[in-house]
Amino acid sequence: MRDLLLLAGVIATLAISGVAQDAGDAGRTAIRKVIEEQQAAWNRQDLDGFMTGYWNSAELTFFSGAQESKGWQAALDRYKKNYRGAGREMGKLEFRNLRIEMLGPEAAFVRGEFHLTMSDGKTPHGLFTLVFRKFPEGWKIVHDHSAE
Amino acid sequence: MRDLLLLAGVIATLAISGVAQDAGDAGRTAIRKVIEEQQAAWNRQDLDGFMTGYWNSAELTFFSGAQESKGWQAALDRYKKNYRGAGREMGKLEFRNLRIEMLGPEAAFVRGEFHLTMSDGKTPHGLFTLVFRKFPEGWKIVHDHSAE
Repeated sequence: MRDLLLLAGVIATLAISGVAQDAGDAGRTAIRKVIEEQQAAWNRQDLDGFMTGYWNSAELTFFSGAQESKGWQAALDRYKKNYRGAGREMGKLEFRNLRIEMLGPEAAFVRGEFHLTMSDGKTPHGLFTLVFRKFPEGWKIVHDHSAE
Repeated sequence: MRDLLLLAGVIATLAISGVAQDAGDAGRTAIRKVIEEQQAAWNRQDLDGFMTGYWNSAELTFFSGAQESKGWQAALDRYKKNYRGAGREMGKLEFRNLRIEMLGPEAAFVRGEFHLTMSDGKTPHGLFTLVFRKFPEGWKIVHDHSAE
């Protein structure tokens, strides 16, 4: 009887850790898709598409160097000014070395590098930390810390 | 009877959200304490004390500007070289505008500003994003992204 209980316990533990593992894998896959879609949107000059990866909220935050900014709409306006304004270009964006780490069933953070290639040969690049939360509409970035 | 069931449901929901709220408050309080102890340790020139806020692991990561580094020991060595080496000083450290956001029962991230005041009047400062995880030994920073 004790052996059976022990076996049941082991099976339950394996099943629970299997479920957690599956949820983690599903989260990582979904988050990777968000990031890949951002990269694709950027590279077809689609800033609105790029911005769908971010939480559409006034509480969304961006840290860029020593600059802090807040809000989804302000971020879109800033991207438009910096990359679509007169004499500006978006360049080709590539994310590299992505490391997606789950922090629970509904949160994760991502470490990675961004590499831009501009038509004049310049290659702005740097590191980023993204914090993701799971919303009813899917995984969204709630905080973006990037620096060149 | 339906009213009673409804009432029971409401009470259960309130109790569960109350428990989650309490856990969040406890997490935030514990994390704030880690950060305050780091500030105090720094200001008494205690780098080993400062480093107890970090996960003592080779997997700990630091992003500083475009530089990525890894590992607890390497971080301690770097702090010693940069702030305790010949002709160097630690200055007075102050963390400001801390925003601690729980990401689940065992994870959180912190947005804030660091301000150093050096004896020559210089005031290096910048933004940071910290990712915290809860370990058996307490809340520890697993990733630090800081930039001036």
